[in-house]
Amino acid sequence: MARRIITLLTDFGNADGYAAVMKGVILSLNPDAVIVDVTHEVRPQAIAQAAFLLGAAYLYFPPDAIHVVVVDPGVGTARRPLLLTTPRGCFVAPDNGVLSYVLRDGFGGGLPDAGSGAVPLPEGFRAFVLDKPEYWLHAVSRTFHGRDVFAPAAAHLSNGVAPESLGSEARGVACLPLVSPRWERGALRGEVVHVDRFGNLITSIPSSMLPEREAVVEVKGRRIEGLSASYAEREGLLAIAGSHGYLEIAFKNGSAARELRVELGEAVAVRRGPAVPSL
Amino acid sequence: MARRIITLLTDFGNADGYAAVMKGVILSLNPDAVIVDVTHEVRPQAIAQAAFLLGAAYLYFPPDAIHVVVVDPGVGTARRPLLLTTPRGCFVAPDNGVLSYVLRDGFGGGLPDAGSGAVPLPEGFRAFVLDKPEYWLHAVSRTFHGRDVFAPAAAHLSNGVAPESLGSEARGVACLPLVSPRWERGALRGEVVHVDRFGNLITSIPSSMLPEREAVVEVKGRRIEGLSASYAEREGLLAIAGSHGYLEIAFKNGSAARELRVELGEAVAVRRGPAVPSL
Amino acid sequence: MARRIITLLTDFGNADGYAAVMKGVILSLNPDAVIVDVTHEVRPQAIAQAAFLLGAAYLYFPPDAIHVVVVDPGVGTARRPLLLTTPRGCFVAPDNGVLSYVLRDGFGGGLPDAGSGAVPLPEGFRAFVLDKPEYWLHAVSRTFHGRDVFAPAAAHLSNGVAPESLGSEARGVACLPLVSPRWERGALRGEVVHVDRFGNLITSIPSSMLPEREAVVEVKGRRIEGLSASYAEREGLLAIAGSHGYLEIAFKNGSAARELRVELGEAVAVRRGPAVPSL
Repeated sequence: MARRIITLLTDFGNADGYAAVMKGVILSLNPDAVIVDVTHEVRPQAIAQAAFLLGAAYLYFPPDAIHVVVVDPGVGTARRPLLLTTPRGCFVAPDNGVLSYVLRDGFGGGLPDAGSGAVPLPEGFRAFVLDKPEYWLHAVSRTFHGRDVFAPAAAHLSNGVAPESLGSEARGVACLPLVSPRWERGALRGEVVHVDRFGNLITSIPSSMLPEREAVVEVKGRRIEGLSASYAEREGLLAIAGSHGYLEIAFKNGSAARELRVELGEAVAVRRGPAVPSL
Repeated sequence: MARRIITLLTDFGNADGYAAVMKGVILSLNPDAVIVDVTHEVRPQAIAQAAFLLGAAYLYFPPDAIHVVVVDPGVGTARRPLLLTTPRGCFVAPDNGVLSYVLRDGFGGGLPDAGSGAVPLPEGFRAFVLDKPEYWLHAVSRTFHGRDVFAPAAAHLSNGVAPESLGSEARGVACLPLVSPRWERGALRGEVVHVDRFGNLITSIPSSMLPEREAVVEVKGRRIEGLSASYAEREGLLAIAGSHGYLEIAFKNGSAARELRVELGEAVAVRRGPAVPSL
Repeated sequence: MARRIITLLTDFGNADGYAAVMKGVILSLNPDAVIVDVTHEVRPQAIAQAAFLLGAAYLYFPPDAIHVVVVDPGVGTARRPLLLTTPRGCFVAPDNGVLSYVLRDGFGGGLPDAGSGAVPLPEGFRAFVLDKPEYWLHAVSRTFHGRDVFAPAAAHLSNGVAPESLGSEARGVACLPLVSPRWERGALRGEVVHVDRFGNLITSIPSSMLPEREAVVEVKGRRIEGLSASYAEREGLLAIAGSHGYLEIAFKNGSAARELRVELGEAVAVRRGPAVPSL
C-alpha cells in the first residue's frame, strides 16, 4: 500500500454518491491512497470540457499522481478503457479524447494530425487497454465503468501493479481536434475554450504569444485596449495574461461571460497596438 | 488512533461549512480518520432520498467503515440518535428511517412489517441509543447534532471505543415503508425511487427480476421495447439493467427525467415481450 | 513532513478545478498534509461572507490547523498576502477583512476602532506579510495567488518552516466594521449576517444576550413570540438559539428566508416579553 495521490475528474455531480462509490472502491484496495477531487461538475458528457480541466490541473500534482477521468458517454460500447503513463503522471480514462491536452503537452504544444481521431504517442508515453478482468471489480456493469474498471485500475496501479499487468499495450490514443491559435489577416486568432465560475473567458491564445505591449483584444464586437496587470486594475472589461497561461478576458467585480453573452468557441482576435480600425 | 474510514451523508449542502465543522470535530478526536463525503446535497429533510443514497453506496466501502448520516428534521426532539453495527459497516444516524435500505439488506431484501414504523433487527445487527453525554461535544446544541453528537460518536468509535460505551442497547430501529416490486395484472410493477444528475430514472425493480429477454417497459404512457446493453446503444429513451442493480430508464445523451417529466414515485411496469397491447 | 490539517475556504466553486490545483501544490510540498474543504461556494468576491464562514468553522479544528482563505478580489494589486498566527490556528489569506471574526474572537468579542480599516493585533497574535519569493511557486501569476502564494505558504508552514521565514512581520490587519448588537429603544437590535442552505437566518445577536424567557423577536414586520427548543417544536416561523451561538430564525420544514424574503443586513429586534405592542 502506498500513500499515492489519485485524482478524480468526472461529470457525476456531487449529489448522487457516484464519486463516493469510486472512492470506496479505491480505499478498499489501497487504504493509504490520497484521493483528490479535481471536479465532478463537468457538464454531462462534455468530453472537451473534461479534457480542458484535466489539462489545467494535472501539472500541479506530483509526477507519480494517478488521474482518473470519467466523462464517458460511450460506456458499455466498444470505446476502450485506457491507462496512459507519462513522465508527468498516469491517466486512467475512456479512450474518447479526454486526454487531448495531456497528449498535446507531450508533443510540446503541437499535435500531430489526428487523422482518424487517434494520435501516435509522444516519447515517454505508453498506453494500455484495461482488458484484464482480474483487475476489475468482480461484477462489471454496462453503465458504471468508473466504479467497476477505472477506480480498481487506479487503485491497483497505486499499489504497485505494473501497467503491463493491467492491460495490453496500445499504440494510438483518441484526440480531439484542438484549435491552435494562428496569425491571420493581421491578427492572432483563437477562441474561448473555457468559462469559469467568475465568468472569466479563458482563450486558446497562449500568453507567450501575446504582443509585449499595446495589444488590442477583440471579442464579440468589443475592443479591449491593452493588457491589464490585475483583475482590479481597470473598470469593466479587461484582458489579462491568465493563470492558465492563456489570454483571459474578465470583467472587474463581475462576469465577462454575462457582459458579453459569450459561449464556448467564440472567436477572439489580438492585434498589435496602437489601436487600428477594427473590422 | 486508527486510519479508519468515516463517510458523511447529509443535507447540509457545501456552502455553509456545516460538513467541514463535522470534519474538524472528527479530526480533533482522531487525526488519522479518513473522511469521505458521500454527498451533502440531499434535498433538505429528504429522509427517503438519504436512505436510498446510503443504500447505494455503503457496500462499496470496507466493512469496518463508519457511515454518518445526518438528515435530521427532528433534531432536538425526542427522536433518538443511533449507532447501528452490522457485518457490513457501522452507521451513526438519527432514528428516523435513513437506515431503511441497510436494514432491508440485512433481512436479505425483504423487510418485516414495520408496524409502528420500527423493525426488529436482522441477525448480526445491534443498535445503541447515543445517550452517553461523556462522548458528546461539551456543549450540545438543539439544532446541530451532526456536530455535537454524531461526529464525536463516529470519531470515538473509530478510535476503538466500544459501541456499548457509547450508548444503551436498543431493539427496534425506524424504517420507511419501502415498496417491493410485485407481479400484478400481468406485469412486474414498481416505481421510480431516484433521479440522478443525468436524468436517469432508477426504479425499485431489481435487475434480477427482469425477464431474460424481450421485456417491454412502460412508464408515463410510453413503451420501451427491449433492454439495452449500454446508454449509447439506441437513440432516445431506453431501459437498462443499471449499475445500482435495478432497472433504469435513460435517454441517450439526454435526460429521461426531462423527456418524461417524471417525479419520484412514478409507476413503472415491465411485461414479458413480445410486445402486447399496452394498457 | 507532518500530518497537519490545512483547510481551504474560497469563492472558486467546485467546477473549475481551481481548488484542486491548490491541493496539488500543497501535496507536492507536503504529501502528509490533511486537506479539508470548508467551502468553495462563497459568492464571488464576497469578503464578508467568507469572514463569517471562517469564523463559524475554525474553532472546531485543532489549534495547530492552518486555514487558507482565498476570496481575493484585489489579487495582483497592492493588497498584502498575509499569515496570521494565533493561539487557535494559523491563517493564510489576503489582507482584506476575511480574518475579521478571528480578530474579534482574539479581542474577546469586541473590536477596537478599525479607523483606517486596520486593527492592531490581539495578544498572542502575530501577522506576517508573505513577501519571501523563495516560498512562492516558481512563477507567480497576477490572478491566482491561491495557487502561487497562499497554498505554498500553508504547505511550508505545515512542514515546520517558521512564520518569520515566510514573511516580514506586520502590525495591523484589515478588519470589516462588524456590527455589534445593541440595546436601543427597549429592544436588543442586530441584523441578519448569514442565510444558510435551509433558509435559516443567522443573526448578529449572541444567544448569551437573549432574555432568559418570553422573548419576542421582530423581523420584517413579523413577530415571533418565545424561543423554540428545536426546529420542529412549532409550526411555521420560529426563533431559536442556533448552533453558531447566535439567535437564528427558522421555519419548520421550510425556509425562513423564502417566507420572509429577507436579505443580509435585515434588521432583527428582540424585546423582553410578555408581548408588548410592536412598533
